[in-house]
Amino acid sequence: MTLRFLTAGESHGPQLTVIIDGVPAGLRLTAEQLAVDLARRQGGYGRGGRMKIERDAARIVSGVRGARTLGSPITLEVQNRDWENWQAVMRVEAEGVKRKPITRVRPGHADLAGMLKYGLDDARDVLERASARETAARVAAGGVAKQLLAQFEISVRSYTRAIGGVEAALPRTIRWAAVERSPVRCPDDDASRAMVAAIDGARAAGDTLGGVFTVIAEGVPPGLGSYRQWDTRLDGLLAQAIVSIPACKAVSLGNGAEAPGLPGSREHDTPVYRRGRGFTHPTNRAGGLEGGISNGEAIVVHGMMKPIATLRRPLDSVDVKTRRAVRAHYERSDVCVVPAAGVIGEAMVALTLASVLLDKFGGDSMRELSRNLSAYKRALPR
Amino acid sequence: MTLRFLTAGESHGPQLTVIIDGVPAGLRLTAEQLAVDLARRQGGYGRGGRMKIERDAARIVSGVRGARTLGSPITLEVQNRDWENWQAVMRVEAEGVKRKPITRVRPGHADLAGMLKYGLDDARDVLERASARETAARVAAGGVAKQLLAQFEISVRSYTRAIGGVEAALPRTIRWAAVERSPVRCPDDDASRAMVAAIDGARAAGDTLGGVFTVIAEGVPPGLGSYRQWDTRLDGLLAQAIVSIPACKAVSLGNGAEAPGLPGSREHDTPVYRRGRGFTHPTNRAGGLEGGISNGEAIVVHGMMKPIATLRRPLDSVDVKTRRAVRAHYERSDVCVVPAAGVIGEAMVALTLASVLLDKFGGDSMRELSRNLSAYKRALPR
Amino acid sequence: MTLRFLTAGESHGPQLTVIIDGVPAGLRLTAEQLAVDLARRQGGYGRGGRMKIERDAARIVSGVRGARTLGSPITLEVQNRDWENWQAVMRVEAEGVKRKPITRVRPGHADLAGMLKYGLDDARDVLERASARETAARVAAGGVAKQLLAQFEISVRSYTRAIGGVEAALPRTIRWAAVERSPVRCPDDDASRAMVAAIDGARAAGDTLGGVFTVIAEGVPPGLGSYRQWDTRLDGLLAQAIVSIPACKAVSLGNGAEAPGLPGSREHDTPVYRRGRGFTHPTNRAGGLEGGISNGEAIVVHGMMKPIATLRRPLDSVDVKTRRAVRAHYERSDVCVVPAAGVIGEAMVALTLASVLLDKFGGDSMRELSRNLSAYKRALPR
Amino acid sequence: MTLRFLTAGESHGPQLTVIIDGVPAGLRLTAEQLAVDLARRQGGYGRGGRMKIERDAARIVSGVRGARTLGSPITLEVQNRDWENWQAVMRVEAEGVKRKPITRVRPGHADLAGMLKYGLDDARDVLERASARETAARVAAGGVAKQLLAQFEISVRSYTRAIGGVEAALPRTIRWAAVERSPVRCPDDDASRAMVAAIDGARAAGDTLGGVFTVIAEGVPPGLGSYRQWDTRLDGLLAQAIVSIPACKAVSLGNGAEAPGLPGSREHDTPVYRRGRGFTHPTNRAGGLEGGISNGEAIVVHGMMKPIATLRRPLDSVDVKTRRAVRAHYERSDVCVVPAAGVIGEAMVALTLASVLLDKFGGDSMRELSRNLSAYKRALPR
Repeated sequence: MTLRFLTAGESHGPQLTVIIDGVPAGLRLTAEQLAVDLARRQGGYGRGGRMKIERDAARIVSGVRGARTLGSPITLEVQNRDWENWQAVMRVEAEGVKRKPITRVRPGHADLAGMLKYGLDDARDVLERASARETAARVAAGGVAKQLLAQFEISVRSYTRAIGGVEAALPRTIRWAAVERSPVRCPDDDASRAMVAAIDGARAAGDTLGGVFTVIAEGVPPGLGSYRQWDTRLDGLLAQAIVSIPACKAVSLGNGAEAPGLPGSREHDTPVYRRGRGFTHPTNRAGGLEGGISNGEAIVVHGMMKPIATLRRPLDSVDVKTRRAVRAHYERSDVCVVPAAGVIGEAMVALTLASVLLDKFGGDSMRELSRNLSAYKRALPR
Repeated sequence: MTLRFLTAGESHGPQLTVIIDGVPAGLRLTAEQLAVDLARRQGGYGRGGRMKIERDAARIVSGVRGARTLGSPITLEVQNRDWENWQAVMRVEAEGVKRKPITRVRPGHADLAGMLKYGLDDARDVLERASARETAARVAAGGVAKQLLAQFEISVRSYTRAIGGVEAALPRTIRWAAVERSPVRCPDDDASRAMVAAIDGARAAGDTLGGVFTVIAEGVPPGLGSYRQWDTRLDGLLAQAIVSIPACKAVSLGNGAEAPGLPGSREHDTPVYRRGRGFTHPTNRAGGLEGGISNGEAIVVHGMMKPIATLRRPLDSVDVKTRRAVRAHYERSDVCVVPAAGVIGEAMVALTLASVLLDKFGGDSMRELSRNLSAYKRALPR
Repeated sequence: MTLRFLTAGESHGPQLTVIIDGVPAGLRLTAEQLAVDLARRQGGYGRGGRMKIERDAARIVSGVRGARTLGSPITLEVQNRDWENWQAVMRVEAEGVKRKPITRVRPGHADLAGMLKYGLDDARDVLERASARETAARVAAGGVAKQLLAQFEISVRSYTRAIGGVEAALPRTIRWAAVERSPVRCPDDDASRAMVAAIDGARAAGDTLGGVFTVIAEGVPPGLGSYRQWDTRLDGLLAQAIVSIPACKAVSLGNGAEAPGLPGSREHDTPVYRRGRGFTHPTNRAGGLEGGISNGEAIVVHGMMKPIATLRRPLDSVDVKTRRAVRAHYERSDVCVVPAAGVIGEAMVALTLASVLLDKFGGDSMRELSRNLSAYKRALPR
Repeated sequence: MTLRFLTAGESHGPQLTVIIDGVPAGLRLTAEQLAVDLARRQGGYGRGGRMKIERDAARIVSGVRGARTLGSPITLEVQNRDWENWQAVMRVEAEGVKRKPITRVRPGHADLAGMLKYGLDDARDVLERASARETAARVAAGGVAKQLLAQFEISVRSYTRAIGGVEAALPRTIRWAAVERSPVRCPDDDASRAMVAAIDGARAAGDTLGGVFTVIAEGVPPGLGSYRQWDTRLDGLLAQAIVSIPACKAVSLGNGAEAPGLPGSREHDTPVYRRGRGFTHPTNRAGGLEGGISNGEAIVVHGMMKPIATLRRPLDSVDVKTRRAVRAHYERSDVCVVPAAGVIGEAMVALTLASVLLDKFGGDSMRELSRNLSAYKRALPR
């Protein structure tokens, strides 16, 4: 990716850090902008206690001066406020580190496979990094990408499509304000209520729920990504970005998950020419992607989340040390994170789109990028 | 990817070429081995005429001596036998090239977006590379990866799970020989027959069908991939690999597409310890992937294919030049490619697994790779 | 690199292949253009017999139609005409391959270290790929990059600065036609003659000579590369590109090799403003690179070549099998390749510059790239 | 690189940050270890005032628990103690940022080209990132790589070979303790004194000096890097790593800079077999690199530094705003940084070697890496 980033930080360490490399100079950027999505990620009905402890904020530590990016790498830090209670456990230094190895591994997590891979005897050393806490750093980075895209009127938004067995009835046009008002980020009020009830039921049962979120990117110009190699295709890049979200084990682009059951005559989107607007597609089953490149319509990506693997009523498992059957370790957790996952999905989609945008249009400054993009758009048939 | 490869070649050019870089020395490799999957890719009920013209074979042009890899890059060439009829159209030289620009773009293909992206006035210049013909090169490369994996008793196989609306009833244990005997590569005989009928129906109607294929990799050791960064997670890498297949617009790992509707208590796989076998999971809803890494169980990946976008009864479209509504250009095509897509899926999964295997175990020769892998396996609890 | 390429092929295999990915659509490209540098690479006083056997030509196998690039990957093939005599030795198939293991390794080559690395018992399996023959593929790829750069009036040329102990007296302005007329590609006639004499002397003695070549890229706009990370700096990228040439073990940018002995007051280039031309530097000690980015002046890179390691009067060495002291294996070779190395240096510099140009200006078509670059240039102070 | 890292931070911002991804689990790591090289980087006769202000220390913020790496990304922070005085100038927020644009660009720096590239009107926005201060983050990261290498008895050390016109007479065996005692890190006492005098002279004249440093890596096994592609060659990777150091504009591997003047018969290193030691080379003109891979001898890399471009007696330059000839802006600077550059060179060599070591041997834990490396070494002929 032209826009590359590395995140770092353990779940109960002092902080998360992310360095984003490749952002042009001259983008307006403030911590306040980034705080919005960090808060949205923490919200959503179904979160556990931790979300109340932490009130995430990103500190901008490099790459920005006077609220403008410099073209140099951007460092963002997100504090782990819970760290104070974990200092002894997570001590960097050898002296005084408090070890109480976790060996009752949690099914559905990296615990067991991670211990085997890295040769560890304490699942703590796995779960601290494999934790979904890491996604706060991605959301912070995604906020930068969103600001960049917003300069070109490209928006990246999301809503909850399903939780547990409850599916939303989707209106033709999403009312985004309603999404943000819904406790589960769902545009369908009835489904919203049913989802809340489902979460309450799961919580009462000590159980958890998964669901589906949808990310929609509007304003994307045609021609991002390329079919020239497998790894330059935008569809594949988006699929990776979404499935890289912890607990997201399936992804569908447009109506991709339904398309296998449709005949070709009812699947594809007929392009038309509209004077002043150029070529456009009245339908968008393709989710804005044809042949691995953007086609000018809204990019639509659905992420399918399995239910959280840490249950209050712990799952059957094994103790890696004694090798006996036990109940899994319980680490404070949520009941349902689908509303938050949508926000993480936005971040991953925004980072991916910003990267392919920079691939196509280059640009070391926002002015240069804007000039190149505008010239391309002007050259498109209208 | 540690194992990197570039494919090249137009659909009606003289040949496809692929260079694979990073294969260790000492792997036995012959053109006969590679021919098997190339033939399997061409088979399957529902293919059009082209498949009869071409009988794909891979010529090994570099990287192999006396049927052993040298550690140097491997070049494979797959001839396009149809080229003879296309020489004038696809001439490399300026003199004598026969241009008859295609402007009636085909919905569901890269045609329109590709013309806008690359500033072209002939969809021929797009469709030649965006064509699924390119996947023959991937299958050839995947054959190399499969040979490598096979040395470690890692198999990568596939079957057809659904075509059109017809879904297979899956047995607990797939009988792979039956899959290869089925005209649609489906392990369920009844479904197989219904799928053939559905394809016949679609062909009669000038229509096309999509479906779902499943790739299963067995023998994969735990600990491939890593949760340390978004782009090192094996789940994301597999999702990209699969969705990068033309017409594949959704992917599900394990029961990922069903998991959103399940409670956490019924989703996750309990690990157990079996003396002599070590840690294992009696169920495999996770599809062999937990926390972004392999967990030692079979890796299960489902690719969801939309129906082919080129229909004999052409779709409504637009002429890019006149900007008028027209019927789309028709280029000889298939009715259903799901059985072939499974073979392509195997190739992409094999390439991905071989790459993460080399990431973890290094090794410039098969002996070294084998030694490192064996030592790791021996060190796992038994 | 945005412009990525993989080469493949053994020295005595049937052919070299290179796939170049990332070239925009619409670049005029013909095999005739590419033949020029391939011939220049084969020329130069001091080459051995092989150069007479082979008359390299690049066949364009993909990515080009009607002498215009399509935006799809470009495949080039360069035949090894000597292959006919080597078919038994280099057979891909197991049957009939003729093995006569080379175990008397050649000092200064990868022979010994390569055998250890890859676990091989025949240095043939090392030297076939480690051979400088591979650079013919790079020169072919470099020809594509040069054509791209030429559209923007960026030239990449080279001359021989030294051979053995003979150093050229360099004129202020290089007469490039004279360089190409010189049998050793040296702009200084007297030095040219002395170099020829030195080569004759070395040949008579069964010895070899190294030397220094200089690559000069003119017309490069300011601002390519970036100081934002160690691996985005153009100086580092050029150094890698040059030192990756076999036998090239030192590189100097501008007067970099002399600068350690100069005081700061005499090293740096004062910028001035010239109405109509903008900012410029009357001197160019920096070789066109300041702070890791191009500064608008000519980029000047010197590659320092050690003498060829294969001598007619073989060096003392060891037999890997018997472990006894022996004379090294002799494989037909040249006396001096510095004139050719300059051509290879041009290719590597051109590929590097084309890549950073595409990084900065993006562009899927030559028209788009040209538009972006022109707009940038227009925005520079004049 | 398998071991990838991103640095971030402005010269007068609050801190430098580096994230290192790909370090195996189980490496002992402490801030004290990292402090050693950070201090060495700050030392050396010829440094200016800043070195007295800052006493660099790296804070380990992630990736380490109880002084052992976890396999997760390692974050290091190095505070800029001078920041307090620069808070207003370097404010991240828009409110209250103090701008006093620098327009009298400094020759030999990125100032002018950077302003053109990024479209900036204040050289401050360039020089903050283009500053050599960034190398403190590299040295911190390099410290991690050195610790990793040290576990396998691979050492990476450096000395000063020349400053200004003064060249050291090098003993056969470097006494490393003497190097560290020398105020200019030079193993030759007489040269050391002459270098100090030269620096004093330059300081008195308001001038600066460059020089040459040498990095030596001992204990490197044969077979790191590969000749299979241009970008896998270790010689090229090292050249890039060294020339990516600010002000380093030439690099020589082994006797690479002298080899152009030698005949082949006197350049190459004859391998011999020694019972118990295996194959070895009594001479090491190749600097441990043959055919682009390590050959088991010490890797020797020389970095050639131009004199610092910021002079107390400012250079002639231009004002970018008025376009008039002026004296360059002066920002507190050093007279000579060659002794420090050696330490930075060690870091870059260590990071490069650790990366190719991980390429070849894989390994998610130090135990696994060690096992794989040991098995390889045991399999080498002795």
